[in-house]
Amino acid sequence: MKKVALIMGSDSDLPVVEKAVHVLKSLCIPYEVHIFSAHRTPEKTREFTLSAKENGFGVIIAAAGKAAHLAGAVAASTVLPVIGIPIKSSALDGLDALFSTVQMPLGIPVATVAIDGAENAALLAAQILAVNDDTLYGKLSALREDSARKTLQKDKEIYEKYSN
Amino acid sequence: MKKVALIMGSDSDLPVVEKAVHVLKSLCIPYEVHIFSAHRTPEKTREFTLSAKENGFGVIIAAAGKAAHLAGAVAASTVLPVIGIPIKSSALDGLDALFSTVQMPLGIPVATVAIDGAENAALLAAQILAVNDDTLYGKLSALREDSARKTLQKDKEIYEKYSN
Amino acid sequence: MKKVALIMGSDSDLPVVEKAVHVLKSLCIPYEVHIFSAHRTPEKTREFTLSAKENGFGVIIAAAGKAAHLAGAVAASTVLPVIGIPIKSSALDGLDALFSTVQMPLGIPVATVAIDGAENAALLAAQILAVNDDTLYGKLSALREDSARKTLQKDKEIYEKYSN
Amino acid sequence: MKKVALIMGSDSDLPVVEKAVHVLKSLCIPYEVHIFSAHRTPEKTREFTLSAKENGFGVIIAAAGKAAHLAGAVAASTVLPVIGIPIKSSALDGLDALFSTVQMPLGIPVATVAIDGAENAALLAAQILAVNDDTLYGKLSALREDSARKTLQKDKEIYEKYSN
Amino acid sequence: MKKVALIMGSDSDLPVVEKAVHVLKSLCIPYEVHIFSAHRTPEKTREFTLSAKENGFGVIIAAAGKAAHLAGAVAASTVLPVIGIPIKSSALDGLDALFSTVQMPLGIPVATVAIDGAENAALLAAQILAVNDDTLYGKLSALREDSARKTLQKDKEIYEKYSN
Amino acid sequence: MKKVALIMGSDSDLPVVEKAVHVLKSLCIPYEVHIFSAHRTPEKTREFTLSAKENGFGVIIAAAGKAAHLAGAVAASTVLPVIGIPIKSSALDGLDALFSTVQMPLGIPVATVAIDGAENAALLAAQILAVNDDTLYGKLSALREDSARKTLQKDKEIYEKYSN
Amino acid sequence: MKKVALIMGSDSDLPVVEKAVHVLKSLCIPYEVHIFSAHRTPEKTREFTLSAKENGFGVIIAAAGKAAHLAGAVAASTVLPVIGIPIKSSALDGLDALFSTVQMPLGIPVATVAIDGAENAALLAAQILAVNDDTLYGKLSALREDSARKTLQKDKEIYEKYSN
Amino acid sequence: MKKVALIMGSDSDLPVVEKAVHVLKSLCIPYEVHIFSAHRTPEKTREFTLSAKENGFGVIIAAAGKAAHLAGAVAASTVLPVIGIPIKSSALDGLDALFSTVQMPLGIPVATVAIDGAENAALLAAQILAVNDDTLYGKLSALREDSARKTLQKDKEIYEKYSN
Repeated sequence: MKKVALIMGSDSDLPVVEKAVHVLKSLCIPYEVHIFSAHRTPEKTREFTLSAKENGFGVIIAAAGKAAHLAGAVAASTVLPVIGIPIKSSALDGLDALFSTVQMPLGIPVATVAIDGAENAALLAAQILAVNDDTLYGKLSALREDSARKTLQKDKEIYEKYSN
Repeated sequence: MKKVALIMGSDSDLPVVEKAVHVLKSLCIPYEVHIFSAHRTPEKTREFTLSAKENGFGVIIAAAGKAAHLAGAVAASTVLPVIGIPIKSSALDGLDALFSTVQMPLGIPVATVAIDGAENAALLAAQILAVNDDTLYGKLSALREDSARKTLQKDKEIYEKYSN
Repeated sequence: MKKVALIMGSDSDLPVVEKAVHVLKSLCIPYEVHIFSAHRTPEKTREFTLSAKENGFGVIIAAAGKAAHLAGAVAASTVLPVIGIPIKSSALDGLDALFSTVQMPLGIPVATVAIDGAENAALLAAQILAVNDDTLYGKLSALREDSARKTLQKDKEIYEKYSN
Repeated sequence: MKKVALIMGSDSDLPVVEKAVHVLKSLCIPYEVHIFSAHRTPEKTREFTLSAKENGFGVIIAAAGKAAHLAGAVAASTVLPVIGIPIKSSALDGLDALFSTVQMPLGIPVATVAIDGAENAALLAAQILAVNDDTLYGKLSALREDSARKTLQKDKEIYEKYSN
Repeated sequence: MKKVALIMGSDSDLPVVEKAVHVLKSLCIPYEVHIFSAHRTPEKTREFTLSAKENGFGVIIAAAGKAAHLAGAVAASTVLPVIGIPIKSSALDGLDALFSTVQMPLGIPVATVAIDGAENAALLAAQILAVNDDTLYGKLSALREDSARKTLQKDKEIYEKYSN
Repeated sequence: MKKVALIMGSDSDLPVVEKAVHVLKSLCIPYEVHIFSAHRTPEKTREFTLSAKENGFGVIIAAAGKAAHLAGAVAASTVLPVIGIPIKSSALDGLDALFSTVQMPLGIPVATVAIDGAENAALLAAQILAVNDDTLYGKLSALREDSARKTLQKDKEIYEKYSN
Repeated sequence: MKKVALIMGSDSDLPVVEKAVHVLKSLCIPYEVHIFSAHRTPEKTREFTLSAKENGFGVIIAAAGKAAHLAGAVAASTVLPVIGIPIKSSALDGLDALFSTVQMPLGIPVATVAIDGAENAALLAAQILAVNDDTLYGKLSALREDSARKTLQKDKEIYEKYSN
Repeated sequence: MKKVALIMGSDSDLPVVEKAVHVLKSLCIPYEVHIFSAHRTPEKTREFTLSAKENGFGVIIAAAGKAAHLAGAVAASTVLPVIGIPIKSSALDGLDALFSTVQMPLGIPVATVAIDGAENAALLAAQILAVNDDTLYGKLSALREDSARKTLQKDKEIYEKYSN
């Protein structure tokens, strides 16, 4: 199976990014985790991205805060799908990272998820890999059904406890 | 090749969505275009989405404005990758549509692109399909190189005309 | 008397929603409390809503955070009045939920109250039921008078303590 | 049938408010249209509101822009349901009116619709009156079905014209 | 000397408003402190305001949060200068109160100060009374000079401690 | 009678400021109009302000756009009341000017009116001068009554034309 | 004299950037104008920047819109001062470009000017070069004096035409 | 070497500004630290700024919160480069300070860094002084390389600990 690259701009992003690690691990998707900075290690970032496809990666997830350029910088060097996680790490509560990640110019898309939405980024990566992988597609469908079942169960409890 | 579904919430979104149609056509990716409303035709939306995979779709793009629920409603009924285009169609200039599309809850990701970013949505769909399609991957790489060449050419003209 | 349905998207919304429960209970209005998710249990949400009128409901209150689609999803399946409570549960402090709830498209209104405004949602539901129920109207008027009396009493205390 | 009061803060709001008039007229709901200003004619506003119930009104719709206090001022003088329409009439594109209308304090709810959402305000008023009026409920359901039919028809046209 | 009326919408505003009390007391300006609510006690608010001039008031300060209508409601009933303090008391951090206070319609000005800017509201009230009161003008000038002296002193300390 | 100083930061602000001129003229309040820039002519601004009181001014109105420092710069050099008009003249639609004008630090209040609210700035200046001038107070009360009368007349026309 | 590099992300930014060209030309500062895209021609951008110092540049100005990464990408490859101009070119009116330009992470500063503030970017570049160039410093001082003179002249005209 | 002036509007800004002090000290750049207030000590601010060049300063850094006028006030009195640090010190989380600092009018640039971005302000000052100082330029390049090395090291650790 193709691997997922999970890149963050700073180790302060790790508590959020770890949630994506857990999702990928639970789905048995192979992954690598990296700290690459669009600004501090731009060449390393570029070098990794340019060879990502031939190194077996299928999707790249990039997490960054403030003027979050990482996902865009990665997307500029590959036509693999790039998923951006805007990190809440500034006075502006992640709105700066959201705008910097999602408002990409013509030609260089970044698939942006919610602020701090690391689990969803991992799930989206899995959904992308599942387009041609029915086993993974089945796992994702099962997760959804499980999540629905849990919500129905919680509904039952709440209904019985609170209704009048 | 798997098809792309291009869904919009209202025919007023068509001028933006047409730009995605042109990209898909130029890449010879098969597609269907639909008007499905999360609010006016929720059952039709759900029915289409539930059978999208078995009907040969690989990616779904959903465009909507204001309290843009369409991409989320579609994403709730499939584990195919869903791309959301927030449309600028209200007093709030698309900020409402951006928040309504990108801030999805845990478990249901929507790959969000820029406000009115229809071309990028189509390119992202192509990049997702290209994960397992080297011919399409090659076309997308060629597009990038072409875009780089044009930018270099423009740089040359501007440099010669304006530098001092 | 017709019942009020009090729906929340997640059990994390319960601390806010409970304040609505207390208001309905104090007014002796019958109600049911549910966890339905527009994204995790869309079919259950739709099924409940489609039969809400025949099951004796007069008003539906829906509370959700982030890209809060729940109130809109409910409103799409009934012409009973639907009241939306945007929940503050994200990096954006509920502004995303407010926009996702209030900026509904033509034809599908959601009666939106303040961010985390659960008591007011319950009072609004009561006011709607009171349009044809003079006893309930009287109770609501009495509540207002009581609130005015308390404010006048507080004014007296503050005036005496602080004025110069 | 109970009447709807349609109040605007200034005659510059009329082009938006007229859309609500058309909806009410098409549903054969009796209504009165007024210009009352929370700031220029506060006593008239209060006097009208205090006697609204005994004068046969069931719902009050209030439209205002900028620091839009009208809906709140009306809601302070009655326990009839009050619907607020934030009008886009300032440098801030209606965001000021939205906040001033929806962020009401504890005890005084205003059922807020989208910025300039006059049709939805009228439909919401109708939905409130229909809670105890099955004929009106039927008309509103028919409107929804008609709207769904039109969307399905448009989908068919778009599908045939654009799909590939 | 004319009195200052210091009105707040709720006793939860008192910690902010008290800072204005201290300023007025220190300047020996007579004042009254009240809790009047534009929504819970609108008639009391109006009655107080209509007779404010004849009761010896020269300026009215009104503090309120969320959809802060109090200053505007007061300004609608008098042509005494009305100063508005937007209170930070909601999910929106006072931005709602700021917009609701400052964006007043034509004809009804509210002199708005910063969010939670109670001291400045009191100083502004004093400056207004000082237009025709040279003693008070002198006190205010002395306060400014004192504040400048303290800042110069702090500068000296910081300069000596930190410069290199 | 004391004079009003009407200062703008740039002649591009004149179309807005002229509306204040008309109000002052109609109330027979003496005034001077100036272009002083906090940034281009800071010394002239300071010199004018420092001598404003002894030159017969009672109130200063300052209008500026973008990072609108003018009102604050003026307020720093006098304890006369200073009224700030945030001008809509930038990409940010006056929100920058509003924040730059209203969010003044402790000790230096600026009485801020709505974005482009020049008439209200002039009326507020008049209200301040009227605190000790019963003739002017009477004129302002008459203006209010006249405005109320006109609104009542418009209400009558709208009511007759639109109600059903 | 060291040169200024004036870089824009797209030729659609030229109408804004041209205003910077005129300022540099009028000050006889040598400059080069380029179109480099952080996303379409990242290697060219990097290559130019890495050799900018040895090629005689003293300051780099970078203008870009939307998720404006250009100034940051340039700043990552040099320790020459980099000035960023956020361009208003999207649904979000340049707020996205402002956040993407100014909210840079620790270690990589970008000297950000106002949205579309191209003249000021050029003046700032000149001020930086003038730190060690008294002739240029003198020219910039003269410009300021000239601007002050013009403002004083306009003040005189406005004063005479409008004061009462 | 020319000195850097580090000015803050209030001693409450010191915890942020100290981070700039450490950067300047570590680079052996001479500096002075001051508390000057655009509003409380405008004359001192102006006097210092007017003589800054002849007193050996090359760059001025100004930090302020809320309606942050300090950097602009300083920039109005010199053509030395002025760097503005918007401080997060209000209900609006520094957005007010950012707009007040960066949105400067034509002719008076302020080089703005991120909210609370004191280290970057100091680095930018150093980069400006390094335009004509190869030793300092070398130190700044070395800092960058060191930062890159540390990021590469962290990447190695994270990669080994987390990848799968």
